[in-house]
Amino acid sequence: MALRHERALVVALEAGAEAVLAVQPSTVTWLTGFAPEIETGPNPFALPPMALLTPDNQPVLIISDDDEPAARGLGCELVTYQGYTIGPLRPLEHAQRALEHAINGRKVATEAGALPVMLALNLDWVDVGADLAQARALKDPDEIEKLRAAVALADVGQRAARQQARAGVSELEVWSALQATIEMAASGRIPLLADVLSGPRTEQVNGSPSNRVLQDGELLLVDLAPRYLGYWGGSCTTIGIGEISAETRVKYQRVHDALERAIEMVRPGVVVGELDELIRRELGYPHHTGHGLGTTYHEIPRIVPKVTTALEAGMVISLEPGIYGEGEGIRLGQIVLVTNEGCEVLSTYNLDL
Amino acid sequence: MALRHERALVVALEAGAEAVLAVQPSTVTWLTGFAPEIETGPNPFALPPMALLTPDNQPVLIISDDDEPAARGLGCELVTYQGYTIGPLRPLEHAQRALEHAINGRKVATEAGALPVMLALNLDWVDVGADLAQARALKDPDEIEKLRAAVALADVGQRAARQQARAGVSELEVWSALQATIEMAASGRIPLLADVLSGPRTEQVNGSPSNRVLQDGELLLVDLAPRYLGYWGGSCTTIGIGEISAETRVKYQRVHDALERAIEMVRPGVVVGELDELIRRELGYPHHTGHGLGTTYHEIPRIVPKVTTALEAGMVISLEPGIYGEGEGIRLGQIVLVTNEGCEVLSTYNLDL
Repeated sequence: MALRHERALVVALEAGAEAVLAVQPSTVTWLTGFAPEIETGPNPFALPPMALLTPDNQPVLIISDDDEPAARGLGCELVTYQGYTIGPLRPLEHAQRALEHAINGRKVATEAGALPVMLALNLDWVDVGADLAQARALKDPDEIEKLRAAVALADVGQRAARQQARAGVSELEVWSALQATIEMAASGRIPLLADVLSGPRTEQVNGSPSNRVLQDGELLLVDLAPRYLGYWGGSCTTIGIGEISAETRVKYQRVHDALERAIEMVRPGVVVGELDELIRRELGYPHHTGHGLGTTYHEIPRIVPKVTTALEAGMVISLEPGIYGEGEGIRLGQIVLVTNEGCEVLSTYNLDL
Repeated sequence: MALRHERALVVALEAGAEAVLAVQPSTVTWLTGFAPEIETGPNPFALPPMALLTPDNQPVLIISDDDEPAARGLGCELVTYQGYTIGPLRPLEHAQRALEHAINGRKVATEAGALPVMLALNLDWVDVGADLAQARALKDPDEIEKLRAAVALADVGQRAARQQARAGVSELEVWSALQATIEMAASGRIPLLADVLSGPRTEQVNGSPSNRVLQDGELLLVDLAPRYLGYWGGSCTTIGIGEISAETRVKYQRVHDALERAIEMVRPGVVVGELDELIRRELGYPHHTGHGLGTTYHEIPRIVPKVTTALEAGMVISLEPGIYGEGEGIRLGQIVLVTNEGCEVLSTYNLDL
């Protein structure tokens, strides 16, 4: 049994339940490895996947039969119900029956912020959503391998962005090129969270690519988080288009230095709120200094003010200080794995301006 | 008040409730025009958007403050709660408070298959999910305009696919080209449901693009449904790569004839189960003959066996017969608007083999 399964069961037992019922797609992925398609929103033929974890058994995946081929070989027991059909669509009824069959009267520790009330009617449940989110912070070796692969895809995208970025090209053209390159490298479609901002838009911190055309002398901010095998990579660069002013170069160097300092500080036992404070106070950015990566693209440990969580070997985190103001924004990020000695930088892309 | 708002309120009143509480993102879009980002799955900083509709008032959108800029100008009252923050993240608590404030003790008719149990604890609710899905079948004029625009984007993608499709090119290369073309035409990222299948993969009916390389003499099946302004377009073609055998051409012609016959049959009063039977019986495909399009990519009226729903002017439906077997599949689709006289074909792409 993977360590994460043990941690999840401890959460359930401490809440007085006999089993974990995961209903957030990211928690289902964490417990089972099953990564549902998400790019087109809720599925009209099925409910989101659910997973049941009990002591001494394989995790049970509760999915529609449409998802069965993708769920084979994960080492889970499958409880399936009818999804797409040319007959009447009744996914809610079918899912409810499958769920109650799998749970078989047990008291479940679940994520009540995502469990549909209709499915909860006949269940004995207790909410442990926050505890499960906490239990996901530390990664098992198989999770770290998936995160490495996802970060490598982000790297591929960053290289494609840098290759494409020049005056006369639009943000959307950079985006299309990098997305195509990532999907070719992944041999298929993958979810991809991305900020692609140029010129004055960089000051707004986040934003999807637009048809704005890059100009000489301005910045392009590229923040990419692809999901691969259910795990989200991350990355962030700021690329200079043509000649960049001396003033902007000075700001870039301050962010670069802050990122290097942050990487040097990472080691087990470091309190993330203190790490945040030391990096943030010089630059004053309006966002996190970093965060955990896993089956969501922003998870514990959140490197934000006042958090008393200590880093542990086996956490995978982003570090991404920035400076925003005077019509431009600069952000540089790297993904690191916390090790016993300090950290291993997983990102491999070029951070030069 | 739009006709759809009146229909939604009738559903609520008939269920003994005073208001509609929409919690399926597609139903929220239907009532408010607000189209949440969906491509990267659940948002760790907020719950999915919700909408409350009461008689004699504007719809109320209940969203995180991150979504406020995108929600302005829709003619809705906004009730916002804290989303992203560098402080503690408590979206569930904040959403619960915002929701209870907006509902203010009313009994709500809601979608209990999607309402989180934690949000339902203090609510007086009744489930009307199936009735709201039914009420969405008929489109208002503003919805038809959005559907026209979404179908036009699908057309753009189909033209790009045809331009790219040739021996030596992979499914993923066709996909990347068509996706880029659609997003350039839309001036931004958009959700896109797609089957891109070549050669023997066409027989499997549905599937995402792979790195399989197209060969002369085989087929490429391209089924594209982009979401634009919250509404899903649709389209389907089967493209011949190089010289196609006489046998396959005969099958192609049978599907083409069936599609033409289906279009000719569409008019108000036609029972969709009868339409399905007449088109299906000659070809024997394993999927629907067609379906409604709107804020989901597959909705009522479902053109499948035995459904007694009659077509009405103002419905927007796909028609998409196919033939599968002997190592290949052919499917041809068009999107039509049911009019008083028959139908208007909205799709404009080339259907030739």
